[in-house]
Amino acid sequence: MQQDLSKISTRAPKDMEKTETKEKLVSILEELDELQNLLFAEGKHSLLVVIQGMDASGKDGAIKNVFGTLNPQGVSVTSFKTPTPEEIGHDFLWRIHKHAPLKGTIQVFNRSHYEDVLITRVHKWIDDETAFKRMKAINNFEKLLLQHNQTHVLKFYLHVSKEEQEERLNERISDVTKQWKYNENDFKEAKLWDDYMKAYEDCFEQCNEVPWTIVPADQNWFKEYTIASAVRDTLKDLNMKYPGMKKE
Amino acid sequence: MQQDLSKISTRAPKDMEKTETKEKLVSILEELDELQNLLFAEGKHSLLVVIQGMDASGKDGAIKNVFGTLNPQGVSVTSFKTPTPEEIGHDFLWRIHKHAPLKGTIQVFNRSHYEDVLITRVHKWIDDETAFKRMKAINNFEKLLLQHNQTHVLKFYLHVSKEEQEERLNERISDVTKQWKYNENDFKEAKLWDDYMKAYEDCFEQCNEVPWTIVPADQNWFKEYTIASAVRDTLKDLNMKYPGMKKE
Repeated sequence: MQQDLSKISTRAPKDMEKTETKEKLVSILEELDELQNLLFAEGKHSLLVVIQGMDASGKDGAIKNVFGTLNPQGVSVTSFKTPTPEEIGHDFLWRIHKHAPLKGTIQVFNRSHYEDVLITRVHKWIDDETAFKRMKAINNFEKLLLQHNQTHVLKFYLHVSKEEQEERLNERISDVTKQWKYNENDFKEAKLWDDYMKAYEDCFEQCNEVPWTIVPADQNWFKEYTIASAVRDTLKDLNMKYPGMKKE
Repeated sequence: MQQDLSKISTRAPKDMEKTETKEKLVSILEELDELQNLLFAEGKHSLLVVIQGMDASGKDGAIKNVFGTLNPQGVSVTSFKTPTPEEIGHDFLWRIHKHAPLKGTIQVFNRSHYEDVLITRVHKWIDDETAFKRMKAINNFEKLLLQHNQTHVLKFYLHVSKEEQEERLNERISDVTKQWKYNENDFKEAKLWDDYMKAYEDCFEQCNEVPWTIVPADQNWFKEYTIASAVRDTLKDLNMKYPGMKKE
C-alpha cells in the first residue's frame, strides 16, 4: 500500500525528550566508532548510506553530525549534483556504481541515483514509463550490491514540513554564514512540493526491496538520533569479529 | 644542506607538557572546524595533506585524530597501496593526480607519490637516475597544483625511533584488536631502516619547493598537535571570507 507523506509527522514523537535523546546520541556515536573499527578490521561487509530529502531538509547537517566523528579513513561522502556530459553519456547508474563502497568501509551518498526518478520526473525530463523502468533497475542494483559484495544499503528520507523548509531557506538569505548555500532555484523547486511528494511516494513503494526509513526531520536532534540508531543496529546485526592474524 | 634524520629527535621538546598540549589540540580542532567550513563556503582553495612515515609510525592514528572531527563531506582520505596493473600502465603520478582535491575540500594522502621514490628505491626496483628524475617530476606536480588550482600542499614525515617502531610492531602480534594490521613483511622492511632514512633524506632535499615538516612521532599527543597546528596555520593564512550571496 502506498504511503501518504502528508499523513506522516515531520516531528519527533511526543514522548521523546531533546536533552535525553542528545545524550543517547553521544553514546551511540561511541558505539559506532568501535563498530566502524571492527567493520574495517574484519573487511567482509560494507555500508552504503543514502540520504535523500528536499532542499534544506538537513542532509548536510545529518552527514556532519552522524558520520563526522568516525574515522575518516573508513568513511567517504559523495554528493551527486547535475551529471556531467560524460556521465549523461552512460546509463544513469554508471556514475553511482563507481562510488559503491569498498569492503570494510562506509559510503555516504548526499543525494543519489534516486534523483534520476525524482527531479527528472517532476520536471518531466523523463516520462513515467522510463521512471518506472529505472525504479526496477534500482532494485536490481541495490540487490547486486548486497548479494555480490555484502554491501548493506540504508536509505533515509529526511521528512521536513513545508513550513520548516521555508524558514530554513529564508535563513540562507539573512545569515551571512549561510548565504553561500542560497540558490534562487530552491524557491522555484519548493513550489513543486506536491509533485515531489508524489515522486517520493512512488520510490518508497517501488524501490522497497531494500526498505526506506522515513526520518521526521523538523528537529535536527531527532533526525540525527534516528539515523545514527539505524546505522548502529545494522552494524551490530552483522556480528562482526576481529579476524586475528592474517595468514600470508 | 642535507638533513640527517638520526640527529633529529623523535620526541617532543622537553618544555612541552602532555596534558596542556592535549587541551591545546582540542581548541585547535575547534578552530579547524570553523576554518573548514569557510574553506568549503568560499570554494577558492583546497588542501592536500601528505602523510608519510615508516610502518607503525602512526599514520592511521594521526589521520583519525586530526581530521576525524571535521565535516566528512569536505575531507577525503586516500590510501595508496601496491599499484594495480592499470596504474602501473601509466606514469607514476597518474593515479595520484586523480585524487587531487576539489576546490573547497581537504584531501589526505596516507602514503603517496613519495612511495615511488622510497620503497621502490630501497628495493632497487628503480635506479637512482630514475629516482632523481621522479623527484623533479614531483616538484613540478606539486607546483602545478598550487599555481593552477590554489591547492596548498602540506607534507608530514612522521619521525619515529627504531625502538618505538619495534614496540608497536610487536603489539600487532599481542593485541587481538591490532592483529589484523600485522604483516610479516613489516619486520623485513624494518631491517632496511638505514636505506629508508637515506631515501627520505633525499626526498627532503630534492622535493623541497613545497617544504616538509618532520614530526617527532614517538608520542602521539605531540604528533597530533604538530600536524593540527600546521594545518590550522595554513588555513588561517589564506584570509578566507564567506562569499555572500552567489549571483545567478
